[in-house]
Amino acid sequence: MYRTHTCGELRLSDVGNQVTLSGWVQRTREMGGMTFVDLRDRYGITQLAFSTEDNEELNQKARKLGREFVIQVKGKVIERSSKNNIIPTGEVEIIVSELNILNSAKTPPFTIENETDGGDELRMKYRYLDIRRKAILDKLRLRNKVSLETRKYLDGVDFMDIETPYLIKSTPEGARDFVVPSRMNQGEFYALPQSPQTFKQLLMVSGIDKYYQIVRCFRDEDLRADRQPEFTQIDCEMSFVEQEDILNTFEGMIKHLFKSCRDVEFKGDFPRMTYADAMEMYGSDKPDIRFGMEFKDMNSVTKDKGFKIFDDAELVLGIVAEDCAIYTRKQLDALTKWVQRPQVGAKGLVYAKYNDDGTFKSSVDKFYSQEDLQEWADLTGAKPGDLMFIMSGDTDKVRSQMSDLRLHMGDELGLRNPNVFKPLWVMDFPLLEWDEEANRFHAMHHPFTSPKAEDIALLETDPGKVRANAYDLAMNGVELGGGSIRIHDKTLQATMLKLLGFTEEEANKQFGFLMDAFEFGAPPHGGIAFGLDRLVATMGGSDSIRDYIAFPKNNSGRDVMIDAPATIDNEQLKELGLLVNLQ
Amino acid sequence: MYRTHTCGELRLSDVGNQVTLSGWVQRTREMGGMTFVDLRDRYGITQLAFSTEDNEELNQKARKLGREFVIQVKGKVIERSSKNNIIPTGEVEIIVSELNILNSAKTPPFTIENETDGGDELRMKYRYLDIRRKAILDKLRLRNKVSLETRKYLDGVDFMDIETPYLIKSTPEGARDFVVPSRMNQGEFYALPQSPQTFKQLLMVSGIDKYYQIVRCFRDEDLRADRQPEFTQIDCEMSFVEQEDILNTFEGMIKHLFKSCRDVEFKGDFPRMTYADAMEMYGSDKPDIRFGMEFKDMNSVTKDKGFKIFDDAELVLGIVAEDCAIYTRKQLDALTKWVQRPQVGAKGLVYAKYNDDGTFKSSVDKFYSQEDLQEWADLTGAKPGDLMFIMSGDTDKVRSQMSDLRLHMGDELGLRNPNVFKPLWVMDFPLLEWDEEANRFHAMHHPFTSPKAEDIALLETDPGKVRANAYDLAMNGVELGGGSIRIHDKTLQATMLKLLGFTEEEANKQFGFLMDAFEFGAPPHGGIAFGLDRLVATMGGSDSIRDYIAFPKNNSGRDVMIDAPATIDNEQLKELGLLVNLQ
Repeated sequence: MYRTHTCGELRLSDVGNQVTLSGWVQRTREMGGMTFVDLRDRYGITQLAFSTEDNEELNQKARKLGREFVIQVKGKVIERSSKNNIIPTGEVEIIVSELNILNSAKTPPFTIENETDGGDELRMKYRYLDIRRKAILDKLRLRNKVSLETRKYLDGVDFMDIETPYLIKSTPEGARDFVVPSRMNQGEFYALPQSPQTFKQLLMVSGIDKYYQIVRCFRDEDLRADRQPEFTQIDCEMSFVEQEDILNTFEGMIKHLFKSCRDVEFKGDFPRMTYADAMEMYGSDKPDIRFGMEFKDMNSVTKDKGFKIFDDAELVLGIVAEDCAIYTRKQLDALTKWVQRPQVGAKGLVYAKYNDDGTFKSSVDKFYSQEDLQEWADLTGAKPGDLMFIMSGDTDKVRSQMSDLRLHMGDELGLRNPNVFKPLWVMDFPLLEWDEEANRFHAMHHPFTSPKAEDIALLETDPGKVRANAYDLAMNGVELGGGSIRIHDKTLQATMLKLLGFTEEEANKQFGFLMDAFEFGAPPHGGIAFGLDRLVATMGGSDSIRDYIAFPKNNSGRDVMIDAPATIDNEQLKELGLLVNLQ
Repeated sequence: MYRTHTCGELRLSDVGNQVTLSGWVQRTREMGGMTFVDLRDRYGITQLAFSTEDNEELNQKARKLGREFVIQVKGKVIERSSKNNIIPTGEVEIIVSELNILNSAKTPPFTIENETDGGDELRMKYRYLDIRRKAILDKLRLRNKVSLETRKYLDGVDFMDIETPYLIKSTPEGARDFVVPSRMNQGEFYALPQSPQTFKQLLMVSGIDKYYQIVRCFRDEDLRADRQPEFTQIDCEMSFVEQEDILNTFEGMIKHLFKSCRDVEFKGDFPRMTYADAMEMYGSDKPDIRFGMEFKDMNSVTKDKGFKIFDDAELVLGIVAEDCAIYTRKQLDALTKWVQRPQVGAKGLVYAKYNDDGTFKSSVDKFYSQEDLQEWADLTGAKPGDLMFIMSGDTDKVRSQMSDLRLHMGDELGLRNPNVFKPLWVMDFPLLEWDEEANRFHAMHHPFTSPKAEDIALLETDPGKVRANAYDLAMNGVELGGGSIRIHDKTLQATMLKLLGFTEEEANKQFGFLMDAFEFGAPPHGGIAFGLDRLVATMGGSDSIRDYIAFPKNNSGRDVMIDAPATIDNEQLKELGLLVNLQ
């Protein structure tokens, strides 16, 4: 037996007992003829003591232990003279009588501490060492807990965990599918699923009634900072439900997860907001409502004063940064530069300070009088001491730019506390999006998403106005999940596919087996999927999902630890009936 | 709201209540002016009653309902006059006052009943309809339960569920890897994991201590009847453990699963048997010990009697089929034919009946006297009324053939009750297997499997004799899982790789990143993996895993429902930098 206890287990009540521990050497230090070793495992750290008086040879051996050596010790638990109140084992130490070195270790390329000196790439290359750090381990622990609590909750309300295949079929729309050549069927390919969408709908046709799966999904796309080629979804679907049933079920799940994994309790129902309102007030379909700074439409108080930029703009938007009238010229210049970065793309930024003495100072004083600016303050609700920011342009663009600025100011002013969680259901998404390039509509969510009953008439007359039974759960400016009620009526589905520009033949080729299945008695159904990586990161109070994935890939889709992807043997290619033909 | 109750929920205590139900029409029948409809959902079946007296129009509508129509009804729960004791809802029915047809249905291509008229291929093509059958649904339900109880058990003993990547790296030994071309890194490929073996060992280096994952694995090999290109493993690894710790932990898991999912309790510890004994007594490393019929070495009583076949054989083996002396010539001929099939490959089958009157009748009476045959009976333990089967040849071959015959006789004699479960740990597997073709040893389990401490000296002198710290859990003739204690000592690992014929360079290329990781302090560790598909099928009392997989592939690796794999667009190939070049 390698151990009688873990390194996180011993307490004062164990004093006097003989124990065996195993673990890694966190550090060693000498003090007055004694050698102290912090022994670490997943469960904690226990202090080992070696004394020259007791055993000179053993003490010598302990002194030579390197960082991250794997050792086993036997000894007696004693009360520590100088207690450590930070760690749970801090009241005891082990007087070691036997020391076995189980494995030596090279010096790690970065320190195994909560705050490490390792850079991102180095940490990814030696991810197996990075995980030894408590900071990372705790993230994986949270993920483990969230996964299990998700399962317990869903099982408790009758969902069945059903595994759907990973080797499926590529569709012409699946431009971002990873494909998998088949050896047994040379020249043919499987595809890895971007989501199990069609399978979960088939399971509803099967009468499974309530399905869930924590499932890997794959997307071969250019990676942005926070995207991974493989990611994990909590994927769910229910039959005989309306939108309200789904929202209730999954609001319950999120509440359960926060309570059980973070001890956070949400009071009352999650607030809800229409997509239209979210865009108008926050310029985002996933607004961070931990703080205010709602957008104000300033068209009525900015036009016809000779300021051409505002006069020409479709929309002039303002927000108020409280108590920021004290911002210096330098700070304001920096903000202007910030919104002019290509990632935001604004032309400029207008500000107006509402000074404590009741006067105004703006960057457009040439065009707007003190009275004009008072009107601005009345409209935006700015009070003395506040600062107004104003941007203008085409509606969609200015909203998006103002949203970026709002979040940036939220960060600057410390209004985005990662330990405060503000969920928000965003509802009534548009069914269709106009695609300028292709000169046709495409489905905003999914071609099987149902329109709102009261908007069905608009499908013929004004399709862009049709709202869908689609919903997202946003939290802290992040989209945690989204879904929709699906179409189960064949006629409506045909209308929808026609609207999306599919000929009957194309529709059959792409969705044939699902549409076939729907001929055999499809129940009304709908579902939702949550991004597990992002959910856990948000619950952990972090923006970055990467640390919450045990073995993540970098921004080029590479696993730098194992060095994948890589070339393969010609023999292997031959067996697959393939030639590499670089473009 | 589509329903107030499920179709499995209503009881006598609900009589008098107004309810709303939704589901599928299982069948309709008319009786004395009434129409009865069996309404089905995942939870059960409830009888609906429509009466002409109450509502002629509604009754007419009900009569026109087709099989598998999706409907919603409202009505009052009443006590049934003629009760059905088979289903839990059999004491009540619903007098329907409102009927909504939610969806019509084409007639299914096979009947949705426990015993269906659909053949295998048809059922796979319409798998979404096959799943509506309670027989299949119950199998998926069992799988769901087994998965969740596995997680609960492992979580309860501190295992962490950690997701390892699916897009990994192909190794030269990975001849059966599925590969995934990368678009972002043209000419390079990921591979899908055959198992997360290296990742779970890395997680031990990370100090995760106890890891598990219910994970998909992939193998691109010629499929035998009961293999799937993607399959699911319960994959586990532990640190600071010896073999005994692992066996105890997972014996506990299997006991928990059988108790919680099948209400089967195992008394005492699982029996254990060495690989050598299993091969000697049963000719199999996964013996079915639900019945006896152990092999007897008959060399001592069969040689030198002039029967050349036995005289020339390395091994003459016998088994006893109790009470089978009554077998007719026709039955014995059929058995001889059976062992001569290519799948078994025996040349012939010798029998000897021990008649009730104490005489013997054998197929080799020409060579063996009654006294000789009495010696056979004494050695094999045959009693009057029993039948002895004898086969001969090279040791490995004859054992394998006799094992096939033994299992076949077990089936014929009804000795393999699918509701009796007999677990068996098979231990002390050989470390190495001699590969005649390659003229070298290869690892029987895995190149990182550790040899038994007491056999290490043999590594230099007689490697074929070295036993490994490797173990399998067999049950009812099926291998449920297997694993080993890994090597964590660098010197021993180097010796092992040399034995396996690796140059240092090859070893680095194949196992480099794992061996690098081992330089930084690897703990002693070991693990096990269970095949979930097979485990659940065995628990369900079935030989075939396919029905326990929601969407299985056929023997050619095809999903006939979605028709995958399939060709892909030239455009897609071009983006991947590939050309199809059929051999």
